[in-house]
Amino acid sequence: MIVRNYHQEKNTDRRVDSDGWSSVRLLLKDDGMGFSFHITTIHKGAELKMHYQNHLESVYCVSGKGSIEDLDEGSTHEIAPGVVYALDKHDRHILRAEEEMIMACVFSPPVTGKEVHNKDGAYPLIEEAS
Amino acid sequence: MIVRNYHQEKNTDRRVDSDGWSSVRLLLKDDGMGFSFHITTIHKGAELKMHYQNHLESVYCVSGKGSIEDLDEGSTHEIAPGVVYALDKHDRHILRAEEEMIMACVFSPPVTGKEVHNKDGAYPLIEEAS
Repeated sequence: MIVRNYHQEKNTDRRVDSDGWSSVRLLLKDDGMGFSFHITTIHKGAELKMHYQNHLESVYCVSGKGSIEDLDEGSTHEIAPGVVYALDKHDRHILRAEEEMIMACVFSPPVTGKEVHNKDGAYPLIEEAS
Repeated sequence: MIVRNYHQEKNTDRRVDSDGWSSVRLLLKDDGMGFSFHITTIHKGAELKMHYQNHLESVYCVSGKGSIEDLDEGSTHEIAPGVVYALDKHDRHILRAEEEMIMACVFSPPVTGKEVHNKDGAYPLIEEAS
């Protein structure tokens, strides 16, 4: 059994910071679960244009308020505690945080943790949908 | 993109109730994510002896207080908001809720949703480790 605590791990290299968000990766590929599990904070006012080309992701809102715009379907959904969205089609989207949002994120296949160390210092799973 | 709201889905057949707990299955196998995602409430005072023989599960504590006893290793871990445990070895365990706990659970492989309809009316993924 693996047991970890967000409040401890956020002070380690499990935490990745970027523009508008930070993410604590509580479970990664090498944990052998078949998925990875991250607690991600979206900072107030952030507007994040994202496109996960290689992974499926589900995102559950623990706290906060915002919206997600589906760029493929042209629709926008409110995000509040209890809302989950799942990018089952590698959907291009814009996530907006009206207030700081805490999100519980699941990636399949799992993130390895090495993705953070690319030349740009960015999280290469998150690619601008240019 | 799939968007669902716990506060709506808890009033549908996505909610499963059993002794000591209820679970709202927000994402199931047929959503094609490669995992299932459930928000599970453990009632105050519950003591649940469990053994998932066919699935791996991670459980993240959103709110509440309790403990998990690892019956294979003989250890006990406190559960509080921010704690995640992962049953990476199909670990036999006892979950105890000192206060009501809200947990974000991920199953791999995903739960289909049909498991709830066995002859006992119980959730057959959860088996007593007799």
